[in-house]
Amino acid sequence: MILKLGGSVITQKEKPLTANLKAIERLSREISEAKVSHLILIHGGGSFGHPLAKQYALKEGYKEKSQLVGFSKTRQAMETLNKLVVDALIRQNVAAVGLQPSAFVVTSSGRISSIEQQPLGKLLEIGLVPVLYGDAVFDFDLGFTILSGDQLAAHLAMQLGASRIILGIDVDGLYTSDPKSDPSAKLIRHVTLQELRNMQHEIEEAKVTDVTRGMLGKILELMPAVEKGIPALIVNAAKPNSIYRALKGEEVTGTTIVKG
Amino acid sequence: MILKLGGSVITQKEKPLTANLKAIERLSREISEAKVSHLILIHGGGSFGHPLAKQYALKEGYKEKSQLVGFSKTRQAMETLNKLVVDALIRQNVAAVGLQPSAFVVTSSGRISSIEQQPLGKLLEIGLVPVLYGDAVFDFDLGFTILSGDQLAAHLAMQLGASRIILGIDVDGLYTSDPKSDPSAKLIRHVTLQELRNMQHEIEEAKVTDVTRGMLGKILELMPAVEKGIPALIVNAAKPNSIYRALKGEEVTGTTIVKG
Repeated sequence: MILKLGGSVITQKEKPLTANLKAIERLSREISEAKVSHLILIHGGGSFGHPLAKQYALKEGYKEKSQLVGFSKTRQAMETLNKLVVDALIRQNVAAVGLQPSAFVVTSSGRISSIEQQPLGKLLEIGLVPVLYGDAVFDFDLGFTILSGDQLAAHLAMQLGASRIILGIDVDGLYTSDPKSDPSAKLIRHVTLQELRNMQHEIEEAKVTDVTRGMLGKILELMPAVEKGIPALIVNAAKPNSIYRALKGEEVTGTTIVKG
Repeated sequence: MILKLGGSVITQKEKPLTANLKAIERLSREISEAKVSHLILIHGGGSFGHPLAKQYALKEGYKEKSQLVGFSKTRQAMETLNKLVVDALIRQNVAAVGLQPSAFVVTSSGRISSIEQQPLGKLLEIGLVPVLYGDAVFDFDLGFTILSGDQLAAHLAMQLGASRIILGIDVDGLYTSDPKSDPSAKLIRHVTLQELRNMQHEIEEAKVTDVTRGMLGKILELMPAVEKGIPALIVNAAKPNSIYRALKGEEVTGTTIVKG
Protein backbone atom coordinates (compact mmCIF):
# COMPACT_ATOMS: atom_id res chain seq x y z
CA MET A 1 0.00 0.00 0.00
CA ILE A 2 1.20 3.50 -0.80
CA LEU A 3 0.36 6.48 1.38
CA LYS A 4 1.12 9.96 0.10
CA LEU A 5 0.86 12.81 2.61
CA GLY A 6 0.55 16.27 1.10
CA GLY A 7 3.08 18.92 2.03
CA SER A 8 0.19 21.20 3.06
CA VAL A 9 -0.71 18.76 5.85
CA ILE A 10 2.74 18.28 7.41
CA THR A 11 4.09 21.82 7.01
CA GLN A 12 2.75 25.31 7.73
CA LYS A 13 1.87 26.65 4.31
CA GLU A 14 2.49 30.33 5.02
CA LYS A 15 5.73 29.93 7.01
CA PRO A 16 8.82 28.89 5.02
CA LEU A 17 10.72 25.92 6.45
CA THR A 18 8.21 25.38 9.26
CA ALA A 19 6.79 21.94 9.96
CA ASN A 20 3.39 21.17 11.42
CA LEU A 21 4.90 19.01 14.17
CA LYS A 22 1.56 18.31 15.82
CA ALA A 23 0.15 16.89 12.58
CA ILE A 24 3.33 14.86 11.92
CA GLU A 25 3.17 13.34 15.41
CA ARG A 26 -0.55 12.51 15.13
CA LEU A 27 -0.19 11.00 11.65
CA SER A 28 2.80 8.93 12.81
CA ARG A 29 0.63 7.57 15.63
CA GLU A 30 -2.19 6.73 13.19
CA ILE A 31 0.28 4.96 10.87
CA SER A 32 1.76 3.06 13.80
CA GLU A 33 -1.67 1.99 15.11
CA ALA A 34 -2.88 0.84 11.67
CA LYS A 35 -0.01 -1.71 11.54
CA VAL A 36 -0.08 -2.06 7.73
CA SER A 37 2.52 -4.45 6.31
CA HIS A 38 4.46 -3.43 3.19
CA LEU A 39 3.65 0.25 3.46
CA ILE A 40 5.48 2.91 1.47
CA LEU A 41 5.11 6.45 2.76
CA ILE A 42 5.71 9.43 0.48
CA HIS A 43 5.44 13.04 1.60
CA GLY A 44 5.34 16.36 -0.20
CA GLY A 45 7.55 19.40 0.32
CA GLY A 46 5.08 22.07 1.41
CA SER A 47 6.79 25.14 2.81
CA PHE A 48 10.15 23.31 2.88
CA GLY A 49 10.42 22.45 -0.79
CA HIS A 50 8.21 24.80 -2.77
CA PRO A 51 9.55 28.29 -1.96
CA LEU A 52 13.19 27.31 -2.62
CA ALA A 53 12.37 25.29 -5.74
CA LYS A 54 10.42 28.25 -7.09
CA GLN A 55 13.08 30.83 -6.16
CA TYR A 56 15.74 28.92 -8.12
CA ALA A 57 13.35 27.77 -10.93
CA LEU A 58 14.45 24.16 -10.44
CA LYS A 59 11.45 22.60 -12.19
CA GLU A 60 12.39 24.30 -15.47
CA GLY A 61 15.83 22.63 -15.42
CA TYR A 62 19.46 23.71 -15.38
CA LYS A 63 20.01 27.05 -17.10
CA GLU A 64 22.70 28.83 -15.12
CA LYS A 65 25.33 28.11 -12.49
CA SER A 66 23.59 30.23 -9.85
CA GLN A 67 20.86 27.56 -9.64
CA LEU A 68 23.31 24.95 -8.31
CA VAL A 69 23.30 26.30 -4.76
CA GLY A 70 19.50 26.39 -5.00
CA PHE A 71 19.50 22.71 -5.86
CA SER A 72 21.73 22.07 -2.82
CA LYS A 73 19.53 24.13 -0.51
CA THR A 74 16.27 22.58 -1.74
CA ARG A 75 17.66 19.09 -1.18
CA GLN A 76 18.83 20.02 2.31
CA ALA A 77 15.39 21.46 3.16
CA MET A 78 13.71 18.24 2.00
CA GLU A 79 16.20 16.19 4.07
CA THR A 80 15.29 18.28 7.11
CA LEU A 81 11.55 17.69 6.63
CA ASN A 82 12.10 13.97 5.93
CA LYS A 83 14.18 13.66 9.09
CA LEU A 84 11.35 15.20 11.16
CA VAL A 85 8.85 12.73 9.70
CA VAL A 86 11.11 9.68 10.14
CA ASP A 87 12.07 10.69 13.70
CA ALA A 88 8.36 10.99 14.62
CA LEU A 89 7.64 7.54 13.14
CA ILE A 90 10.56 6.00 15.06
CA ARG A 91 9.17 7.57 18.28
CA GLN A 92 5.91 5.70 17.49
CA ASN A 93 7.85 2.44 17.09
CA VAL A 94 7.62 2.38 13.30
CA ALA A 95 10.94 1.14 11.86
CA ALA A 96 10.96 3.91 9.26
CA VAL A 97 13.86 4.57 6.91
CA GLY A 98 14.20 7.73 4.84
CA LEU A 99 15.01 7.00 1.18
CA GLN A 100 16.37 9.83 -0.96
CA PRO A 101 14.59 9.77 -4.37
CA SER A 102 17.34 11.77 -6.13
CA ALA A 103 19.82 8.99 -5.27
CA PHE A 104 17.94 6.30 -7.23
CA VAL A 105 15.45 7.97 -9.59
CA VAL A 106 16.35 9.83 -12.79
CA THR A 107 13.78 11.60 -14.99
CA SER A 108 13.59 12.57 -18.69
CA SER A 109 11.80 15.86 -19.35
CA GLY A 110 10.29 15.65 -15.89
CA ARG A 111 8.94 12.09 -16.17
CA ILE A 112 10.51 9.14 -14.31
CA SER A 113 12.70 7.23 -16.77
CA SER A 114 14.97 5.13 -14.56
CA ILE A 115 14.42 3.81 -11.08
CA GLU A 116 16.76 1.48 -9.16
CA GLN A 117 14.31 -0.47 -7.05
CA GLN A 118 16.59 -3.03 -5.37
CA PRO A 119 17.19 -1.09 -2.14
CA LEU A 120 13.49 -0.15 -1.89
CA GLY A 121 12.40 -3.75 -2.50
CA LYS A 122 14.87 -5.09 0.04
CA LEU A 123 13.71 -2.52 2.59
CA LEU A 124 10.07 -3.64 2.26
CA GLU A 125 11.05 -7.30 2.33
CA ILE A 126 12.90 -6.93 5.65
CA GLY A 127 9.89 -5.19 7.23
CA LEU A 128 11.10 -1.59 7.28
CA VAL A 129 8.89 1.32 6.22
CA PRO A 130 10.46 3.42 3.44
CA VAL A 131 9.73 7.13 3.66
CA LEU A 132 10.22 8.92 0.31
CA TYR A 133 9.40 12.46 -0.73
CA GLY A 134 9.05 14.89 -3.60
CA ASP A 135 12.63 15.82 -4.44
CA ALA A 136 14.96 17.82 -6.67
CA VAL A 137 16.24 15.08 -9.01
CA PHE A 138 18.52 14.64 -12.02
CA ASP A 139 16.97 14.75 -15.46
CA PHE A 140 18.49 13.47 -18.71
CA ASP A 141 17.08 16.32 -20.77
CA LEU A 142 16.81 19.18 -18.27
CA GLY A 143 19.89 18.51 -16.11
CA PHE A 144 17.67 18.55 -13.06
CA THR A 145 14.02 19.12 -12.23
CA ILE A 146 11.42 18.66 -9.48
CA LEU A 147 9.86 15.21 -9.11
CA SER A 148 6.50 15.43 -7.33
CA GLY A 149 5.53 12.96 -4.63
CA ASP A 150 2.33 12.31 -6.63
CA GLN A 151 4.21 11.11 -9.72
CA LEU A 152 6.48 9.00 -7.50
CA ALA A 153 3.46 7.45 -5.75
CA ALA A 154 1.74 6.47 -9.02
CA HIS A 155 4.96 5.13 -10.59
CA LEU A 156 5.90 2.98 -7.58
CA ALA A 157 2.32 1.73 -7.24
CA MET A 158 2.48 0.43 -10.82
CA GLN A 159 6.03 -0.89 -10.60
CA LEU A 160 5.51 -2.74 -7.31
CA GLY A 161 1.87 -3.74 -7.92
CA ALA A 162 0.41 -1.86 -4.95
CA SER A 163 -3.10 -2.75 -3.77
CA ARG A 164 -4.12 0.86 -3.21
CA ILE A 165 -2.92 4.47 -3.19
CA ILE A 166 -4.10 6.74 -0.38
CA LEU A 167 -3.67 10.46 -0.90
CA GLY A 168 -3.90 12.47 2.31
CA ILE A 169 -4.53 16.17 1.65
CA ASP A 170 -5.99 19.15 3.54
CA VAL A 171 -9.55 18.98 2.17
CA ASP A 172 -12.09 16.13 2.16
CA GLY A 173 -11.62 15.17 -1.48
CA LEU A 174 -12.72 16.26 -4.91
CA TYR A 175 -15.73 18.61 -5.04
CA THR A 176 -18.15 19.48 -7.85
CA SER A 177 -16.97 23.08 -7.41
CA ASP A 178 -14.93 25.09 -4.89
CA PRO A 179 -16.62 24.53 -1.47
CA LYS A 180 -15.07 27.74 -0.13
CA SER A 181 -16.91 29.97 -2.60
CA ASP A 182 -19.84 27.81 -3.70
CA PRO A 183 -22.26 26.67 -0.94
CA SER A 184 -23.84 24.17 -3.33
CA ALA A 185 -20.51 22.39 -3.87
CA LYS A 186 -20.77 18.66 -3.25
CA LEU A 187 -18.06 16.16 -2.34
CA ILE A 188 -17.67 13.53 -5.06
CA ARG A 189 -17.53 10.23 -3.15
CA HIS A 190 -16.85 7.99 -6.11
CA VAL A 191 -15.52 8.74 -9.57
CA THR A 192 -14.41 6.71 -12.59
CA LEU A 193 -11.59 7.52 -15.00
CA GLN A 194 -14.12 8.37 -17.72
CA GLU A 195 -15.91 10.84 -15.44
CA LEU A 196 -12.54 12.40 -14.55
CA ARG A 197 -11.65 12.76 -18.22
CA ASN A 198 -14.93 14.63 -18.76
CA MET A 199 -14.09 16.93 -15.84
CA GLN A 200 -10.61 17.46 -17.27
CA HIS A 201 -12.28 18.80 -20.37
CA GLU A 202 -14.28 21.28 -18.29
CA ILE A 203 -11.10 22.41 -16.55
CA GLU A 204 -9.40 23.14 -19.82
CA GLU A 205 -12.37 25.30 -20.60
CA ALA A 206 -11.80 27.05 -17.25
CA LYS A 207 -15.17 26.22 -15.80
CA VAL A 208 -13.71 25.39 -12.38
CA THR A 209 -11.62 27.37 -9.91
CA ASP A 210 -7.86 27.23 -9.37
CA VAL A 211 -8.29 25.21 -6.19
CA THR A 212 -10.09 22.42 -8.02
CA ARG A 213 -7.56 22.70 -10.82
CA GLY A 214 -4.64 22.12 -8.39
CA MET A 215 -6.42 19.09 -6.99
CA LEU A 216 -7.07 17.76 -10.47
CA GLY A 217 -3.36 18.06 -11.28
CA LYS A 218 -2.69 15.60 -8.46
CA ILE A 219 -5.45 13.30 -9.66
CA LEU A 220 -4.18 13.34 -13.25
CA GLU A 221 -0.82 12.06 -11.92
CA LEU A 222 -2.59 9.11 -10.29
CA MET A 223 -4.66 8.20 -13.37
CA PRO A 224 -2.09 5.85 -15.02
CA ALA A 225 -2.04 3.76 -11.82
CA VAL A 226 -5.85 3.70 -11.61
CA GLU A 227 -5.89 2.68 -15.30
CA LYS A 228 -3.83 -0.37 -14.26
CA GLY A 229 -6.52 -1.31 -11.74
CA ILE A 230 -5.06 0.25 -8.59
CA PRO A 231 -7.79 2.28 -6.85
CA ALA A 232 -6.90 5.63 -5.31
CA LEU A 233 -8.54 7.14 -2.25
CA ILE A 234 -8.33 10.83 -1.40
CA VAL A 235 -8.95 11.69 2.25
CA ASN A 236 -8.51 14.66 4.56
CA ALA A 237 -5.31 13.91 6.49
CA ALA A 238 -5.82 17.05 8.59
CA LYS A 239 -8.84 15.36 10.22
CA PRO A 240 -7.86 12.97 13.03
CA ASN A 241 -8.34 9.28 12.24
CA SER A 242 -9.01 9.71 8.51
CA ILE A 243 -5.62 8.23 7.61
CA TYR A 244 -5.98 5.50 10.24
CA ARG A 245 -9.37 4.49 8.82
CA ALA A 246 -8.16 4.68 5.23
CA LEU A 247 -5.16 2.46 6.03
CA LYS A 248 -7.40 -0.07 7.79
CA GLY A 249 -9.86 -0.08 4.88
CA GLU A 250 -12.65 1.27 7.12
CA GLU A 251 -15.42 3.63 6.01
CA VAL A 252 -14.08 7.19 5.72
CA THR A 253 -15.17 10.48 4.12
CA GLY A 254 -13.27 11.05 0.87
CA THR A 255 -13.14 10.49 -2.89
CA THR A 256 -12.50 7.04 -4.34
CA ILE A 257 -11.17 6.86 -7.90
CA VAL A 258 -11.63 3.59 -9.75
CA LYS A 259 -10.98 2.42 -13.29
CA GLY A 260 -14.60 2.12 -14.32
CA MET B 1 39.16 12.89 -7.40
CA ILE B 2 37.83 11.14 -4.31
CA LEU B 3 38.30 12.55 -0.82
CA LYS B 4 37.43 10.37 2.15
CA LEU B 5 37.31 12.07 5.54
CA GLY B 6 37.53 9.75 8.53
CA GLY B 7 34.77 9.83 11.13
CA SER B 8 37.41 10.42 13.81
CA VAL B 9 38.24 13.79 12.23
CA ILE B 10 34.72 15.21 11.86
CA THR B 11 33.18 13.83 15.09
CA GLN B 12 34.23 13.73 18.72
CA LYS B 13 35.30 10.14 19.24
CA GLU B 14 34.40 9.83 22.91
CA LYS B 15 31.04 11.65 22.77
CA PRO B 16 28.20 9.80 21.01
CA LEU B 17 26.36 11.84 18.35
CA THR B 18 28.68 14.83 18.74
CA ALA B 19 30.24 16.47 15.70
CA ASN B 20 33.56 18.30 15.60
CA LEU B 21 31.97 21.39 14.08
CA LYS B 22 35.21 23.37 14.11
CA ALA B 23 36.96 20.70 12.03
CA ILE B 24 33.97 20.39 9.65
CA GLU B 25 33.94 24.16 9.07
CA ARG B 26 37.72 24.33 8.51
CA LEU B 27 37.74 21.33 6.15
CA SER B 28 34.80 22.80 4.20
CA ARG B 29 36.82 25.99 3.76
CA GLU B 30 39.87 24.03 2.58
CA ILE B 31 37.72 22.08 0.08
CA SER B 32 36.14 25.31 -1.15
CA GLU B 33 39.50 27.05 -1.58
CA ALA B 34 41.05 24.12 -3.44
CA LYS B 35 38.37 24.45 -6.18
CA VAL B 36 38.78 20.87 -7.47
CA SER B 37 36.46 19.94 -10.32
CA HIS B 38 34.71 16.55 -10.27
CA LEU B 39 35.26 15.93 -6.59
CA ILE B 40 33.43 13.20 -4.66
CA LEU B 41 33.47 13.58 -0.90
CA ILE B 42 32.88 10.57 1.36
CA HIS B 43 32.82 10.75 5.14
CA GLY B 44 32.86 8.18 7.89
CA GLY B 45 30.44 7.77 10.78
CA GLY B 46 32.66 8.28 13.85
CA SER B 47 30.62 8.75 17.02
CA PHE B 48 27.38 9.08 14.99
CA GLY B 49 27.48 5.74 13.21
CA HIS B 50 29.69 3.36 15.16
CA PRO B 51 28.06 3.18 18.64
CA LEU B 52 24.55 2.55 17.22
CA ALA B 53 25.76 0.11 14.55
CA LYS B 54 27.64 -1.82 17.24
CA GLN B 55 24.74 -1.75 19.74
CA TYR B 56 22.37 -3.33 17.19
CA ALA B 57 25.03 -5.57 15.58
CA LEU B 58 24.13 -4.25 12.13
CA LYS B 59 27.36 -5.36 10.43
CA GLU B 60 26.59 -9.00 11.18
CA GLY B 61 23.27 -8.76 9.30
CA TYR B 62 19.60 -9.24 10.06
CA LYS B 63 18.98 -11.78 12.80
CA GLU B 64 16.04 -10.49 14.81
CA LYS B 65 13.24 -7.94 14.54
CA SER B 66 14.63 -5.83 17.40
CA GLN B 67 17.48 -4.78 15.09
CA LEU B 68 15.11 -2.96 12.69
CA VAL B 69 14.74 0.11 14.89
CA GLY B 70 18.54 0.09 15.23
CA PHE B 71 18.84 0.20 11.46
CA SER B 72 16.41 3.17 11.43
CA LYS B 73 18.29 5.01 14.17
CA THR B 74 21.73 4.42 12.63
CA ARG B 75 20.51 5.76 9.29
CA GLN B 76 19.00 8.83 10.97
CA ALA B 77 22.27 9.50 12.84
CA MET B 78 24.23 9.31 9.57
CA GLU B 79 21.73 11.67 7.91
CA THR B 80 22.25 14.13 10.77
CA LEU B 81 26.04 14.05 10.38
CA ASN B 82 25.79 14.28 6.57
CA LYS B 83 23.48 17.29 6.90
CA LEU B 84 26.03 19.07 9.14
CA VAL B 85 28.80 18.43 6.59
CA VAL B 86 26.70 19.51 3.57
CA ASP B 87 25.40 22.62 5.36
CA ALA B 88 28.98 23.65 6.19
CA LEU B 89 30.04 23.16 2.54
CA ILE B 90 27.08 25.24 1.31
CA ARG B 91 28.11 28.02 3.74
CA GLN B 92 31.53 27.95 2.00
CA ASN B 93 29.83 28.25 -1.41
CA VAL B 94 30.38 24.64 -2.40
CA ALA B 95 27.26 23.34 -4.22
CA ALA B 96 27.28 20.13 -2.19
CA VAL B 97 24.54 17.51 -2.38
CA GLY B 98 24.19 14.68 0.13
CA LEU B 99 23.73 11.30 -1.57
CA GLN B 100 22.37 8.41 0.51
CA PRO B 101 24.41 5.26 -0.27
CA SER B 102 21.70 2.88 1.01
CA ALA B 103 19.33 4.26 -1.66
CA PHE B 104 21.52 3.16 -4.58
CA VAL B 105 24.09 0.61 -3.36
CA VAL B 106 23.32 -3.01 -2.43
CA THR B 107 25.95 -5.42 -1.09
CA SER B 108 26.38 -9.21 -1.06
CA SER B 109 28.00 -10.58 2.10
CA GLY B 110 29.24 -7.10 2.90
CA ARG B 111 30.82 -6.37 -0.49
CA ILE B 112 29.32 -3.92 -3.02
CA SER B 113 27.45 -5.95 -5.65
CA SER B 114 25.13 -3.43 -7.30
CA ILE B 115 25.49 0.30 -7.68
CA GLU B 116 23.14 2.61 -9.62
CA GLN B 117 25.53 5.31 -10.78
CA GLN B 118 23.28 7.44 -13.01
CA PRO B 119 22.31 10.03 -10.37
CA LEU B 120 25.91 10.25 -9.12
CA GLY B 121 27.27 10.64 -12.64
CA LYS B 122 24.69 13.30 -13.50
CA LEU B 123 25.48 15.16 -10.29
CA LEU B 124 29.20 15.35 -11.15
CA GLU B 125 28.45 16.30 -14.75
CA ILE B 126 26.32 19.29 -13.71
CA GLY B 127 29.06 20.56 -11.40
CA LEU B 128 27.64 19.61 -8.02
CA VAL B 129 29.75 17.99 -5.30
CA PRO B 130 28.27 14.67 -4.09
CA VAL B 131 28.76 13.98 -0.40
CA LEU B 132 28.43 10.27 0.46
CA TYR B 133 29.12 8.40 3.69
CA GLY B 134 29.54 5.04 5.33
CA ASP B 135 25.99 3.76 5.73
CA ALA B 136 23.73 0.96 6.91
CA VAL B 137 22.82 -0.69 3.58
CA PHE B 138 20.80 -3.63 2.21
CA ASP B 139 22.62 -6.88 1.58
CA PHE B 140 21.44 -9.77 -0.60
CA ASP B 141 22.85 -12.40 1.77
CA LEU B 142 22.74 -10.71 5.17
CA GLY B 143 19.53 -8.65 4.83
CA PHE B 144 21.49 -5.56 5.79
CA THR B 145 25.03 -4.68 6.85
CA ILE B 146 27.42 -1.75 7.31
CA LEU B 147 29.16 -0.41 4.20
CA SER B 148 32.34 1.46 5.13
CA GLY B 149 33.23 4.75 3.50
CA ASP B 150 36.61 3.20 2.64
CA GLN B 151 35.07 0.40 0.56
CA LEU B 152 32.78 2.93 -1.11
CA ALA B 153 35.75 5.22 -1.92
CA ALA B 154 37.77 2.42 -3.54
CA HIS B 155 34.79 1.05 -5.48
CA LEU B 156 33.74 4.43 -6.89
CA ALA B 157 37.35 5.31 -7.72
CA MET B 158 37.57 2.18 -9.89
CA GLN B 159 34.10 2.49 -11.40
CA LEU B 160 34.47 6.17 -12.32
CA GLY B 161 38.20 6.07 -13.14
CA ALA B 162 39.29 8.54 -10.45
CA SER B 163 42.74 10.12 -10.74
CA ARG B 164 43.49 9.81 -7.03
CA ILE B 165 42.06 8.83 -3.63
CA ILE B 166 42.87 11.05 -0.65
CA LEU B 167 42.24 9.57 2.77
CA GLY B 168 42.09 12.18 5.54
CA ILE B 169 42.53 10.63 9.00
CA ASP B 170 43.64 11.79 12.48
CA VAL B 171 47.31 10.72 12.25
CA ASP B 172 50.02 11.61 9.72
CA GLY B 173 49.89 8.32 7.85
CA LEU B 174 51.23 4.76 8.14
CA TYR B 175 54.08 4.23 10.62
CA THR B 176 56.65 1.45 10.95
CA SER B 177 55.22 0.87 14.45
CA ASP B 178 52.85 2.64 16.85
CA PRO B 179 54.27 6.16 17.29
CA LYS B 180 52.43 6.53 20.61
CA SER B 181 54.33 3.68 22.28
CA ASP B 182 57.48 3.39 20.19
CA PRO B 183 59.72 6.49 19.98
CA SER B 184 61.65 4.95 17.09
CA ALA B 185 58.46 4.68 14.95
CA LYS B 186 58.93 6.25 11.53
CA LEU B 187 56.32 7.59 9.13
CA ILE B 188 56.33 5.63 5.87
CA ARG B 189 56.24 8.31 3.15
CA HIS B 190 55.95 5.97 0.20
CA VAL B 191 54.87 2.36 -0.04
CA THR B 192 54.13 -0.10 -2.84
CA LEU B 193 51.48 -2.80 -2.89
CA GLN B 194 54.14 -5.50 -2.54
CA GLU B 195 55.59 -3.82 0.56
CA LEU B 196 52.06 -3.57 2.00
CA ARG B 197 51.46 -7.27 1.37
CA ASN B 198 54.63 -8.08 3.29
CA MET B 199 53.41 -5.91 6.18
CA GLN B 200 50.03 -7.63 6.05
CA HIS B 201 51.86 -10.89 6.68
CA GLU B 202 53.53 -9.42 9.77
CA ILE B 203 50.15 -8.21 11.03
CA GLU B 204 48.66 -11.66 10.78
CA GLU B 205 51.55 -12.80 12.93
CA ALA B 206 50.60 -10.06 15.43
CA LYS B 207 53.87 -8.22 15.27
CA VAL B 208 52.20 -4.81 15.18
CA THR B 209 49.79 -3.02 17.49
CA ASP B 210 46.03 -2.68 17.17
CA VAL B 211 46.34 0.93 16.04
CA THR B 212 48.45 -0.02 13.05
CA ARG B 213 46.12 -2.93 12.40
CA GLY B 214 43.07 -0.60 12.22
CA MET B 215 44.93 1.61 9.80
CA LEU B 216 45.93 -1.36 7.70
CA GLY B 217 42.29 -2.43 7.49
CA LYS B 218 41.57 0.88 5.77
CA ILE B 219 44.55 0.48 3.48
CA LEU B 220 43.55 -3.06 2.51
CA GLU B 221 40.19 -1.66 1.34
CA LEU B 222 42.02 0.78 -0.95
CA MET B 223 44.38 -1.83 -2.42
CA PRO B 224 42.11 -2.99 -5.30
CA ALA B 225 41.95 0.63 -6.54
CA VAL B 226 45.73 1.09 -6.23
CA GLU B 227 46.13 -2.20 -8.11
CA LYS B 228 44.20 -0.56 -10.97
CA GLY B 229 46.72 2.29 -11.04
CA ILE B 230 44.89 4.84 -8.87
CA PRO B 231 47.35 6.16 -6.26
CA ALA B 232 46.13 6.74 -2.71
CA LEU B 233 47.43 9.41 -0.34
CA ILE B 234 46.90 9.27 3.41
CA VAL B 235 47.18 12.63 5.20
CA ASN B 236 46.35 14.08 8.59
CA ALA B 237 43.04 15.93 8.09
CA ALA B 238 43.20 17.18 11.69
CA LYS B 239 46.18 19.37 10.72
CA PRO B 240 45.13 22.63 9.04
CA ASN B 241 45.90 22.84 5.31
CA SER B 242 46.84 19.18 4.85
CA ILE B 243 43.63 18.48 2.92
CA TYR B 244 43.96 21.73 0.96
CA ARG B 245 47.52 20.82 -0.08
CA ALA B 246 46.59 17.23 -0.90
CA LEU B 247 43.67 18.39 -3.09
CA LYS B 248 45.94 20.87 -4.91
CA GLY B 249 48.62 18.22 -5.44
CA GLU B 250 51.11 20.21 -3.33
CA GLU B 251 53.82 18.70 -1.10
CA VAL B 252 52.27 17.42 2.15
CA THR B 253 53.27 15.10 5.01
CA GLY B 254 51.62 11.70 4.59
CA THR B 255 51.84 8.22 3.09
CA THR B 256 51.53 7.66 -0.63
CA ILE B 257 50.51 4.20 -1.80
CA VAL B 258 51.33 3.26 -5.39
CA LYS B 259 51.04 0.09 -7.45
CA GLY B 260 54.77 -0.59 -7.71
